[in-house]
Amino acid sequence: MTDFAATKAMFYLPDGMIYLDGNSLGPLPKATVARVERAVTAEWGEKVITGWNRAGWMAQPTELGDRIGRLIGAEPGHVVLGDTLSIKVYQALAAAIDLVPDRRVILTDSGNFPSDIYMAEGLIKSLGRGHELRVVDPEDVANHINDDLAVLMLTQVDYRTGRLHDMKALTAKAHAADAVTCWDLAHTAGAMAVDLQGCNADFAVGCTYKYLNAGPGAPAFIYVAPKHISSCQPALSGWLGHEAPFAFDLDYRPGTGIERMRVGTPSVLQMAALDASLDIWDQVDMDALRKASIALTERFIAGVEARCPQLTLASPRDPQARGSQVSFAFEDGYAAMQACIARNVIGDFRAPNIMRFGFCPLFIDAGDVDAAIDVIADVMGNRLWDDQTYKQVARVT
Amino acid sequence: MTDFAATKAMFYLPDGMIYLDGNSLGPLPKATVARVERAVTAEWGEKVITGWNRAGWMAQPTELGDRIGRLIGAEPGHVVLGDTLSIKVYQALAAAIDLVPDRRVILTDSGNFPSDIYMAEGLIKSLGRGHELRVVDPEDVANHINDDLAVLMLTQVDYRTGRLHDMKALTAKAHAADAVTCWDLAHTAGAMAVDLQGCNADFAVGCTYKYLNAGPGAPAFIYVAPKHISSCQPALSGWLGHEAPFAFDLDYRPGTGIERMRVGTPSVLQMAALDASLDIWDQVDMDALRKASIALTERFIAGVEARCPQLTLASPRDPQARGSQVSFAFEDGYAAMQACIARNVIGDFRAPNIMRFGFCPLFIDAGDVDAAIDVIADVMGNRLWDDQTYKQVARVT
Repeated sequence: MTDFAATKAMFYLPDGMIYLDGNSLGPLPKATVARVERAVTAEWGEKVITGWNRAGWMAQPTELGDRIGRLIGAEPGHVVLGDTLSIKVYQALAAAIDLVPDRRVILTDSGNFPSDIYMAEGLIKSLGRGHELRVVDPEDVANHINDDLAVLMLTQVDYRTGRLHDMKALTAKAHAADAVTCWDLAHTAGAMAVDLQGCNADFAVGCTYKYLNAGPGAPAFIYVAPKHISSCQPALSGWLGHEAPFAFDLDYRPGTGIERMRVGTPSVLQMAALDASLDIWDQVDMDALRKASIALTERFIAGVEARCPQLTLASPRDPQARGSQVSFAFEDGYAAMQACIARNVIGDFRAPNIMRFGFCPLFIDAGDVDAAIDVIADVMGNRLWDDQTYKQVARVT
Repeated sequence: MTDFAATKAMFYLPDGMIYLDGNSLGPLPKATVARVERAVTAEWGEKVITGWNRAGWMAQPTELGDRIGRLIGAEPGHVVLGDTLSIKVYQALAAAIDLVPDRRVILTDSGNFPSDIYMAEGLIKSLGRGHELRVVDPEDVANHINDDLAVLMLTQVDYRTGRLHDMKALTAKAHAADAVTCWDLAHTAGAMAVDLQGCNADFAVGCTYKYLNAGPGAPAFIYVAPKHISSCQPALSGWLGHEAPFAFDLDYRPGTGIERMRVGTPSVLQMAALDASLDIWDQVDMDALRKASIALTERFIAGVEARCPQLTLASPRDPQARGSQVSFAFEDGYAAMQACIARNVIGDFRAPNIMRFGFCPLFIDAGDVDAAIDVIADVMGNRLWDDQTYKQVARVT
């Protein structure tokens, strides 16, 4: 599907709201309401315990995984849903570290999402084997890939600026140094096509509540490349990752394939919401999506820069070097963003000074971009002194 | 509330079904349908990203935790919801091990749920410090508590037989040996009152999809005793356990109190279902519940034993020594249970030979027990040879 007017009609958007925060939490697909209700009443209510088989709950994490797999270029049978992104980061990094037992450096950058870094710190502490988490500037990552590197752990799109790492080049460089890679696709999956297979990526993780529109608390996913899946031993070895969960053996034996990355009971109601949102994604042409996304972000940058000289572009100017968001730096960004939100243009603020706007062509069009620019220009032009949001923009000059 | 006819009316139960599997997955509370729909439409749909504060999503894991806290005798502010039970077991055990750095033995029993054992095996392997997981018979646990013990890790109610450990006595004995305790309340929370505080328990975990009726994939909970909370360092150190998640610092600092046991984004739709089921639990008198539960299980045992000599009671005969389930051993238990299920009496089977029936007074009454006994006696009396379920009971003699 390349008709994004049609997809826009599939979303519920509050009246008058221009929602530029789908990079934080995607809006509600209209069909999700009935799909979740079906999970509650026709599945849980009617089938109760038999829903695990008769409503397909047990198989959902891998079935939904394959549908996400298409969007990120994964081989079928190599993506599974479950848990949260932080847990999946832990699993991926633990498995990656095991593959390079004689090295101690885990390389990441300061633009990685903090939770990825925290989970790595916690894992390193648990392992107690002297691993070092080396945090460098995003621009310096390539220069730090050398022969002491065990794992390159990066988030592909910087949550603050939208800066896009070159997955293919960095993975190749890491492999040339005999290291393995863990890619966090939180701000890439659903923002543009990803080609895990073509990039020869080793591990990848991501969430489904941002661009994939599966709702608050939606499950995360993990990808393990075919060449690693049989050798990696899950650090979080839960019963649903067991070869035979219902044999109730007392010894853990990892399941076949990506199933071993499952841990506990899947969140069935959240999976139902994901099922509904993927009904839209199943139809999306990812090249058309990227083209539309770039058109929106270019239009937004041009409009804001023409009318708001106080704002400094914090995202890469080259559209090929950024994700599907645009960030501007502004000293009083927090107050300015509050003023925008009060005018129903929803972006968000990231410390210390980043005003962040996400653009998903599935529900944002050029008219929305123009209307958002008008509001932002109004806010920045100090035209709000007399109205009720005065206090929120008092510091904007 | 002690009127269980009133609570029974609050549940949706499929027509004609006698549901004795609430110990595996509780049935749907009627009010859950509207509560979940509200979370989808009025919260996610209308509030989108602002739901984290304006719909209270961020605070739910601790608010719901306190409501569960009442049922398990926890101090306010010491229970938090999130993730799955397996993940919470990992967190609790990792924190417990840290408290006893000079010892290496983790004691559990062969009646513990396998996933708890698998998670412990995975943690021990990750730690690589020579910890030993000692698995003994449930009856032998007390005899193995001695001065080399680091952590006593038990599930209070055996998922197979319903055998109930004496939490108070075992915790006291573990403490006398300078060990710490991790209690899994999967089959206790909502089955009877628990008194974590009175038992001086150190860590506890549990799930909410069994007796607590929060639905498939409902979140787990973790309790940490006040005396340990400030010193325990989360092994799974996610951003929502950080002291200031939205400061996006690159260094992890554990949050204040039980908040540090949070990991990633809470499953908002599942939390909404839990909210609705706790609206019932908030009103339940736990002593009356236990009394009613014992009356039901005693009635069931007496009826089955009188009419089904082929079945051997596998649960403790003393009602004070068992949870809210009754298990019978029978060589062809799988086939017999299938025949019961075909007759709409829903229990379940656990290898190798356990027919398991759960009794929750919130939606099961004496009439249900009698009707279930009739069906089980029919099945066991070989009266089904001519009907369509013949094949399923062909091996029942």
